[in-house]
Amino acid sequence: MSLTVFMAEMLGTMLLTLLGGGVVANVLLAKSKGLGGGTLMINFGWGLAVFAGVWVAAASGAHLNPAVTIGLLTNGDLAEFAPGVDKTFLIMLAYFASQMIGAMLGAVLCYLVYKHHFDEEEDAALKLAVFATGPAIRHRGWNLVTEAIATFVLVFVIAGFGKTPHELGPLAVALLVVGIGASLGGPTGYAINPARDLGPRIVHALLPIKNKGGSDWSYAWVPVLGPLLGGLIGGVGAAALF
Amino acid sequence: MSLTVFMAEMLGTMLLTLLGGGVVANVLLAKSKGLGGGTLMINFGWGLAVFAGVWVAAASGAHLNPAVTIGLLTNGDLAEFAPGVDKTFLIMLAYFASQMIGAMLGAVLCYLVYKHHFDEEEDAALKLAVFATGPAIRHRGWNLVTEAIATFVLVFVIAGFGKTPHELGPLAVALLVVGIGASLGGPTGYAINPARDLGPRIVHALLPIKNKGGSDWSYAWVPVLGPLLGGLIGGVGAAALF
Amino acid sequence: MSLTVFMAEMLGTMLLTLLGGGVVANVLLAKSKGLGGGTLMINFGWGLAVFAGVWVAAASGAHLNPAVTIGLLTNGDLAEFAPGVDKTFLIMLAYFASQMIGAMLGAVLCYLVYKHHFDEEEDAALKLAVFATGPAIRHRGWNLVTEAIATFVLVFVIAGFGKTPHELGPLAVALLVVGIGASLGGPTGYAINPARDLGPRIVHALLPIKNKGGSDWSYAWVPVLGPLLGGLIGGVGAAALF
Amino acid sequence: MSLTVFMAEMLGTMLLTLLGGGVVANVLLAKSKGLGGGTLMINFGWGLAVFAGVWVAAASGAHLNPAVTIGLLTNGDLAEFAPGVDKTFLIMLAYFASQMIGAMLGAVLCYLVYKHHFDEEEDAALKLAVFATGPAIRHRGWNLVTEAIATFVLVFVIAGFGKTPHELGPLAVALLVVGIGASLGGPTGYAINPARDLGPRIVHALLPIKNKGGSDWSYAWVPVLGPLLGGLIGGVGAAALF
Repeated sequence: MSLTVFMAEMLGTMLLTLLGGGVVANVLLAKSKGLGGGTLMINFGWGLAVFAGVWVAAASGAHLNPAVTIGLLTNGDLAEFAPGVDKTFLIMLAYFASQMIGAMLGAVLCYLVYKHHFDEEEDAALKLAVFATGPAIRHRGWNLVTEAIATFVLVFVIAGFGKTPHELGPLAVALLVVGIGASLGGPTGYAINPARDLGPRIVHALLPIKNKGGSDWSYAWVPVLGPLLGGLIGGVGAAALF
Repeated sequence: MSLTVFMAEMLGTMLLTLLGGGVVANVLLAKSKGLGGGTLMINFGWGLAVFAGVWVAAASGAHLNPAVTIGLLTNGDLAEFAPGVDKTFLIMLAYFASQMIGAMLGAVLCYLVYKHHFDEEEDAALKLAVFATGPAIRHRGWNLVTEAIATFVLVFVIAGFGKTPHELGPLAVALLVVGIGASLGGPTGYAINPARDLGPRIVHALLPIKNKGGSDWSYAWVPVLGPLLGGLIGGVGAAALF
Repeated sequence: MSLTVFMAEMLGTMLLTLLGGGVVANVLLAKSKGLGGGTLMINFGWGLAVFAGVWVAAASGAHLNPAVTIGLLTNGDLAEFAPGVDKTFLIMLAYFASQMIGAMLGAVLCYLVYKHHFDEEEDAALKLAVFATGPAIRHRGWNLVTEAIATFVLVFVIAGFGKTPHELGPLAVALLVVGIGASLGGPTGYAINPARDLGPRIVHALLPIKNKGGSDWSYAWVPVLGPLLGGLIGGVGAAALF
Repeated sequence: MSLTVFMAEMLGTMLLTLLGGGVVANVLLAKSKGLGGGTLMINFGWGLAVFAGVWVAAASGAHLNPAVTIGLLTNGDLAEFAPGVDKTFLIMLAYFASQMIGAMLGAVLCYLVYKHHFDEEEDAALKLAVFATGPAIRHRGWNLVTEAIATFVLVFVIAGFGKTPHELGPLAVALLVVGIGASLGGPTGYAINPARDLGPRIVHALLPIKNKGGSDWSYAWVPVLGPLLGGLIGGVGAAALF
């Protein structure tokens, strides 16, 4: 795996969490111009965060998500992670590393963009929400089911992109993410990506954010394991169907 | 009709009702993060549910809707249901079966995703709304007219997709469904698809949902017959115009 | 001009006013499911109404709007109204006729779709709003300026579609109309199309709508003349620039 | 640089500020039909303003933004500003001039479209907001950081458009701008374009707007310098990565 591939995957994931965290900050944090912008705005914001990230990560195939990498690994139909990038266990780990580093960088940039809004916000839960997901009704077993099904949809449908003629480029996955968010995001806030959730959660724990609360580590494994399970099932299912 | 075609149509329709039911659950059910997200969010959610479903159903031509199948049957211009799939009465029935099974599976998955929100919701009418449509003003004759006209638009415009150069792929039908929902969904909630309404309604009747009410069977024939009529007129009209 | 061209233009404009009027009815009329859906929903609804109409009108070049026809007439760069359709004064009149008939048919269908919501709505002004535009602040001179500038944008930008490589098909004009509505629709409700406004206004005057008020004929010339002026300037400007 | 290139860039930027200012006027000014339309509507309005502008500016490469011009200048990968337009310091200045003139013309047109709504609006701050951006929390150092990061995303991602196959044309940049607005617009209102902010601010100072307040010149350098810095970093970064 070349440095260009590593950098592309890292920068793509950085844009993903910068813009994705950003729309949550815009809608939730004190005095922001988008305060109260609503759920559909968050759905579009996250979808277009994926959109932005994919454009710069052509070299790595723009996974931007360990669940997608797992899905591609288990989908025997595809020979490579990206053109010229072999499917090996070691390269999979390199993908995970670049995704985690990128997700953390994006979270730091997002904090810088909204620095004074973090300072003036009084509700610690809203600050955490910019970085990591949390359940609407806490029940980790069912929350896991929700994350797994939502990520299955993501990985399974992405596998179908090559089967239908179109020239949508990154818009296809962007709109898919808008749809998954609008439809399946109600119970858990749709992490559907372990790096997108764990990376920024670590940043939340490390950064000296004013009046921050805990990083909710007791929930942190759900948006990691759920998406990995969903990605695995999606990849196997896609190999079986297509 | 091969197993692949059957599976593709079934899984595409499964994604349709999973995501379509999901956005209604997100906007309506207690404690969901999208509670009160509004009508436009529901319109985009359903459109992108179609979007997701179509990507995985290339093998079957992605009807995902008996009204579309009827429309194609009556549109003499087209020789096949999908590349390599003959237009016969028996294959039409197989399409209907795969669509109904898929729609029911999607409704079950949607219930699992929102399990605890169904449990905590107290209004039985909102629970039914996740599965099946109901009229804003109950008058089955006029409700039938609304469903027929809306489905006519769907099938007639789909028939025009091949007449204009574009590379939108599944986005064309997705946006058409967003538009039909926003414009013609006011009176009946736009079933515009018999399987999408009847399949989940059966699931609603069968599942052990906490504090559920009736499944409103006295209305159930309207979102079946209306779309079939509209699809028929749309297919005949398209054959005449194009 | 063949019957197919006439029918295509007529049916495309019919879909335009059916879906365009429909989204206004959905957001404004009593007991509709989309009641209070907001301005952005109306903007998307009208944009996707254009989207639907354009798909079925490939044969006529999908003007669907006398202002576009005027713009094409004055744009000396283009030799025909559509492939195989000559640019003559008589054919221009035939376009106008098909657009007006189509716009009226669409308004009738829209009334049928929302029949009981028209019956139960008590505010006559909201009923008229489904058919025709009206100004937020009545000042016909300035209202004319607004309609002319908005239609100039429509016709001028459409003329640019062929200058940039893309495969968006009818989505290009649909999104342009969403944008014009969101940005320039505030003062007059953006008719930007004489047939879209005058045709349904006539239907409003003729139909036996329960408790309807007047059809505001003293304003009716503004959304006719303004768009024609704007289309003219847009066509001349496009011929000069491109 | 030919007159056609100058005119294209000027008219494209004119459409940008006409439609971009327009959506703010629609959502904010007294008695406008879009009053209270919300942040997502403003985000779509600005994105589609870019969309409209790009279509008419193919001849100049549709920068419409000095930060994009700077980004292209510093991106050594690209040999020209547009097909047939050399990259020289003098031509860069000509781009800046056409962008500023166009941005000012668009602001004048926007004022004409909303003339009576400006007259009836009592809050001078809302009038200025139609022309120029202002911070949610005034801290020029951090506001500069926000504008620089947001414009870095714009220029860096645009540089990636050519690396991924697609036929979205101007829709790619339009949706990118929707996303940047939704995600990074909270603190400063996302100028991300010196001409878009400075040009209309000058027009605000010059026009005889009823009951207008000051033009906030003490902030005016932030949305000029921030975007130029971001564009520079984006261009250099793109040359390094791609």
